This record gives sequence, C-alpha cells and structure tokens, in this order.
Amino acid sequence: MKVLITGIDGYSGWPLALHLLSRGHEVVGLDNFVTRRRVREVGSWSATPIPSFARRQAVVKELLGREIGFHRGDMTRFEFVRGVLATEKPDAIVHLAEQRSAPYSMIDVHHAVATQVENLTGTLHLLYAIQECCPEAHLVKMGTMGEYGTPNLDIAEGFFDIEFRGRKDRVPFPRQAGSWYHWSKVFDSGDVMFATKIWNLRATDVMQGVIYGIRTPEIKDDRLLTRFDFDETWGTALNRFIAQAVLGLPITPYGKGEQKRGFIALEDSMQSLRLAVENPPAAGEYRVFNQFDEAYSVNALAELAERVAHEFGLSPTIDHPPDPRVEAEQHYYHPLHDHLLSLGYRRSRALEDVVREIFHDLIRFRRRLEAKRHVVLPTVQWRLSNSRPALAARAPPPRSPPPVGPGEPTAEGPTV
Amino acid sequence: MKVLITGIDGYSGWPLALHLLSRGHEVVGLDNFVTRRRVREVGSWSATPIPSFARRQAVVKELLGREIGFHRGDMTRFEFVRGVLATEKPDAIVHLAEQRSAPYSMIDVHHAVATQVENLTGTLHLLYAIQECCPEAHLVKMGTMGEYGTPNLDIAEGFFDIEFRGRKDRVPFPRQAGSWYHWSKVFDSGDVMFATKIWNLRATDVMQGVIYGIRTPEIKDDRLLTRFDFDETWGTALNRFIAQAVLGLPITPYGKGEQKRGFIALEDSMQSLRLAVENPPAAGEYRVFNQFDEAYSVNALAELAERVAHEFGLSPTIDHPPDPRVEAEQHYYHPLHDHLLSLGYRRSRALEDVVREIFHDLIRFRRRLEAKRHVVLPTVQWRLSNSRPALAARAPPPRSPPPVGPGEPTAEGPTV
Repeated sequence: MKVLITGIDGYSGWPLALHLLSRGHEVVGLDNFVTRRRVREVGSWSATPIPSFARRQAVVKELLGREIGFHRGDMTRFEFVRGVLATEKPDAIVHLAEQRSAPYSMIDVHHAVATQVENLTGTLHLLYAIQECCPEAHLVKMGTMGEYGTPNLDIAEGFFDIEFRGRKDRVPFPRQAGSWYHWSKVFDSGDVMFATKIWNLRATDVMQGVIYGIRTPEIKDDRLLTRFDFDETWGTALNRFIAQAVLGLPITPYGKGEQKRGFIALEDSMQSLRLAVENPPAAGEYRVFNQFDEAYSVNALAELAERVAHEFGLSPTIDHPPDPRVEAEQHYYHPLHDHLLSLGYRRSRALEDVVREIFHDLIRFRRRLEAKRHVVLPTVQWRLSNSRPALAARAPPPRSPPPVGPGEPTAEGPTV
Repeated sequence: MKVLITGIDGYSGWPLALHLLSRGHEVVGLDNFVTRRRVREVGSWSATPIPSFARRQAVVKELLGREIGFHRGDMTRFEFVRGVLATEKPDAIVHLAEQRSAPYSMIDVHHAVATQVENLTGTLHLLYAIQECCPEAHLVKMGTMGEYGTPNLDIAEGFFDIEFRGRKDRVPFPRQAGSWYHWSKVFDSGDVMFATKIWNLRATDVMQGVIYGIRTPEIKDDRLLTRFDFDETWGTALNRFIAQAVLGLPITPYGKGEQKRGFIALEDSMQSLRLAVENPPAAGEYRVFNQFDEAYSVNALAELAERVAHEFGLSPTIDHPPDPRVEAEQHYYHPLHDHLLSLGYRRSRALEDVVREIFHDLIRFRRRLEAKRHVVLPTVQWRLSNSRPALAARAPPPRSPPPVGPGEPTAEGPTV
C-alpha cells in the first residue's frame, strides 16, 4: 500500500516510516519541523542526536535502498495539504502532525490557542482534502487515551451501549480531557467522526496510550534513531525519570504518584498502527482503538526506573514534588482494549526490558543530557493563568509560540 | 450588576441589552459587526432595518436615558479581550460573539475552519482574560441544543448518572453534533468545563434551543428592532417559512420534515439569560441549562406558518425539497429541561402568537424581503465537499470568509 505519514519527522512518524517500509509498503511523508523548533523554544533537545530529514532520507537510501517521498510544509495551509493528497493519492494516511505536548499547551494563552487551532485546522484540512482527492483513502488519526480522563467507570473503546431513563442507545463514550492539548484531540475526534458520517469516509481513531522506548527492530543504526525528549514539556514521565537517574538527580513523580495511565512500547505502537493501516474499515465506518497494553501508576514507573538504575551503578532517590497539573492523584482506571487484539495484535515488549534498553542508550548519550540538565523539572503550572509565558525562569521564549511555517530542518546537534 | 455582552450587535445580544437595562443592570458590550458583513456575503440582509450601532446607542439614550458602553473589536485578538475585561471588570459576561450559522460553516473548507477557529479562539481568550482580570465574574456561554444531536435517549442537562459494567459515575452527556458549527459549540463547552475546573471559575453553559420571534417587551420602537434573517444560511427554518409565505413562495421543510428540535421565544430566551445572570453558580461550578420550552417538528412549524398565513390573506403551499443536511429525518427527541424552572423561569409566549406577530412585522417590511427573494432556498449541501464556495450559483463570494477584523458598522439599508 501507499501510506502518507503526516509528521513523519517526529517521534512516532519516523519509526513508523521504517516499519512500513520493512513490510513492503510505499511511504511518503510531510512535516514542517515544528517539533524541532519548539523543543528548542523550551531550551531542550533530543537526547538522541537526530540528523536533518534530508540526511535521514539519504541513510534510508544507503542502508535499505528505499526512497521516502517527502513534502515540506504546513498543514494549516489548505493548498499545501490538498496538493500533497492530489499528487500522492495515498491508500492510507496516518495523521501524526499535531502539537503533542500537554504542558506546552498549558504555558499561556498563546500556546493554548496555537495548540487547539493548529491541531483542529490541520485535521479539518486533511478531511476536506481526502474527500476531494482520495475519498477511498483510510485515515488513521492519532488521538490519545487522555481524551477520556479518569471516570469512575471502565472506559469503552470509543462507543458504549447505555440505558438512561428506560431507553437504550449506543453513544460516544464521554470525554473529560485534562489539558488544552488533550481537548484538542477530543475536538479532532468529533470532526473525524462527523466527516465519516457526512462524506462516507473511512477512519480509525487511535486513542494512543503513553509510548515508551526509543528502538524498534528497524532501527539498526544510530543514524536511524528516533528522538528522545526528556524535558518537562516534551518528555513523558518515564523519559524524565530515566534521564534524572542518569543525571544523578532525584526521580520526581508529581504529587501522590497514584495517577494511572495506559502504556505501550514504541515497537508495539508501530505494530498497532501498521495493523490499522493493513485492515481498513468499511467506507463510512468510524472505528476507535484504545491502543495500549497495560496501565501503570506514575509511582510504579518511578520505582521501576529506580530499580533498573541500580543495574547500571546508579542510585537515584525518589522525590514527590507537588503536582503541577489538575488531575486526580488517586482514581479508578480500567480502559477496555479489545479491538486491536481482534486484528491479531500481540504485545512484543515488556516495560522492564525497554526501560533497560533506554538506560543503555541514555548512558551512551549522557553528555547530551548533561548539557540540558536544567530542563527536567516542572515550571508549567495548570492552576496558574498565564497570559504571559511561564518559562521566564529559564530562557525567555517569544511571547507567541514559534510560527508553524517552514523552518530550518537543522540536525539536533552532534553528540556533545 | 454590571454585565458585558459579547456580540451585543447580534440577534440575541441587542434585545438582551435592552432587557438587562430594563431590569436596572448596567450593560456594556463588544462586537466586530461580522454578522452584518457575512449576511451581505451570502447576498442577504435583515428583514427588519437595523441602524448602525452608534445609532442604536443614541436611540437608547433618547428613549431610555441610559448609556450602553461599547468596545469595537475582535475576540480573536487576545489583547483586545483582556483590555475590555481589565477596563470593565464586569460581574457577568454573556458570551454571544460567535459564528452562529450551521449552513455557513458547511459552505466550504475555509468557512468550516473559520467557524471552528474563531469560536474556539474567542472563548479561550475570554477564559484566560476572566481568570486574569475578573476571576469572580460569571461566564454565561451560549451553546446549542444541537450539541447533543438526536440520540435515542432522553437528553440530560449536561451531565447524567450512568452505570456501565457494574460501576456508576456522573459524566458529561455524549455530544453528537450535526455541522462544523455545532461541533464548534461542543469544543467551547469542553474548554469552559475544563477552565472552571482548573481555575475555579463559575460558568453557565446554555444549550440554547432555536429562538423564534423579533420582539420583546422592551422593543417599543422600530429603531430598537433586532435583526430578522430569512436567507437559507442565517435564517432559521421558521423564519424562512414565514418569509416564503409572505413572498408567495411555497414553504419548504427539508426532507420528510419529521426532524424535531427544541424551541423558545426570543422574549423567553432573554428571560432565561437574565435569570442565569442574576443567579450565578458557585466558584468552580460548571452548570448546564437546556434552554427551550417545547420540541416541534419542522412539519409542525410549516403547517403552523401555513395556517397563520391564511389569516393574513396568504395561501402558501408546502413543498418538501430533499434535505441538504445529513441528519435523521425521523427520530426520538426528548431533552430534559428542569434547571431553569428551578430558578423561577416561566414561559411567557406561545409559538402561534409569536408567529402571528412575525407575519405582522414581515408584511410591514415586505419590500425588504422582495429585494432578496432569491436567498431563501438551500444551496449549501452537507454531503458535498466544497473546497471551493458552493454559493457560486448566486453572487460569487470571496474564496475565504470576510475577515473578522473591524469593518464598517453600516446600517443594513433603509426600508426599500
């Protein structure tokens, strides 16, 4: 199949391209390189050195003898999106080109608006372009398990059958997101659901759990590595914990640490997306996957990071700074996740093994962590209203987020 | 109380200002006059002649001896919104400044994006500005009954208690909107709910039914009239039916005509908003009102319009053109609406009396209808993807919607 990956330069987009190539699919991508710029905005970089995208393409050509088509541009420009779809006419589109950080969206009013407006606009542009250029194409849209929040109920996969006042219906599972970013994903879900209905499109909406890991079987060379963010804005909790351990800092789960989330290994997330692509829904079908393997509490991650750290001669402590987010620190959490299993999904990686692998890589790139050791602690506060940037304690960022227009596709520095 | 009305120049905003003044409240408003420009964009105007806003202020001063403070500007500019709130420090804010037409949002990709981006951005700006400038202020936000769609269930007022797989929780009632516009209101609801939670704000989210009527007790002079839109984009079904009858055209309910919606008289909508303003929720409370009196099918409206038309010597027929929307043409519809009753709300106007009143007014302004008689039939199709404007059959509009920036606050023409 011919698959278009929007956001192909990102953490998931790049390993997905490699995975789909390995399965014999044709891959084209688009990106505006905004994640590279926005990670710089908060004073950080990827722990793994990331070549420019042109270099990535050249390495794929050299090692695999394969071409990856690429369109540089911004999905907030409709003519760009329509041009790419009209030219490529893909069979499937995996839409990853969105602002993906909850803390980034909470920095101030401008970052909140940029997150919601960019994500929503890109998705609407994509829906209109699909309908016009390739209405049979299957849209695989990246959502998040965070759309559901933490209700005191089992979380259904998108829809559930309920009874209310003596009547029954199958309706969308309620969404109660916990950041402007997570709400932007709720909004996307609404728009995609509606577009499949009015235009008979086919879509898979992926409620993605938190992804862990840097490696997939296709990443056999350091030049093929994907990014690993460890700052408070772009890094996941687990990423920060391991970076803290490597840097000799305390591991810092927020608050009580009993917040639970669903997790999945990078390799298994790629497996899931590939299964979605290879098994498209019928025309008019809007299908939802809860894409994770297991729920862990933040404390469980912290304790695991601490335990594995000892294997590497590290002895981190665990601190509990106040939770900067507004979230339940103790709650019920049991989302259902059967849809992928029915397509043949099987978990391939255990969390502990991947944590060990991450330690191994981060110790190799320790000097890149050292150079940015000030970025791992929280500064963005959910409870404060920030119409001005809250990052001033570090480097003063511009008042507005960097524009999403084309920027320099610079490499994220050599290994220091 | 001091009440800020955003969108004070609009169909609801203006009579709300007059009603709140009559109750002794202080009223200030803001507007960018975009509705006037966008009604021109589709080749129409208000059946009632609408003076410029400066003239409206002067008439209020002349007739009532009262001042209405006014700020002209656009809510997509954060500095404008913050400036107004910092200056005025209102006790309550009734937020009506949004693109309010479902068909307008369905014209093409640019109108879809403009609708969702402007509505969402204005609301986010308002939430941040409230938190910064007047965190005790009560936000009354205009949503729509259309957020819920037409599930095969009674529709709760915002939240409902459910049981799923043996566990119970109180969760948001699922939203299944039927146009990009209606989805924009769903998005606003999510953002307002989240802001009340993280910042302890107080908000009333009004799921507004379709409003009928031109008059309220405060509109005692033609110079105080509010607008009456009758074109397919900006006019409600009932408005179009009465305009069609007056013009000697067939009345045109779409499709089977069994689509049911909740309705409320303009005067009673103003009563409801005033009750919300005068009875604010507690800090941190997000309160939802289903604001309508009675559900009617489109056929019932058409038959009523036909029946009352005869009293005025008119003999319209009823036609059923294909439904341009994607919606259930026959469905269960039973939304709950108890919250306003508990604040003392009592219905004051019957639909039939108001329909008679509208006929009376439209016959007076018949020449303004005649001048625009081509605008009452549908051209916007839900099922077509339009990346180019669908209105080309009439006057070619610009490819993008008119900018929301300040435009001329011109009067909508003298009576022709």
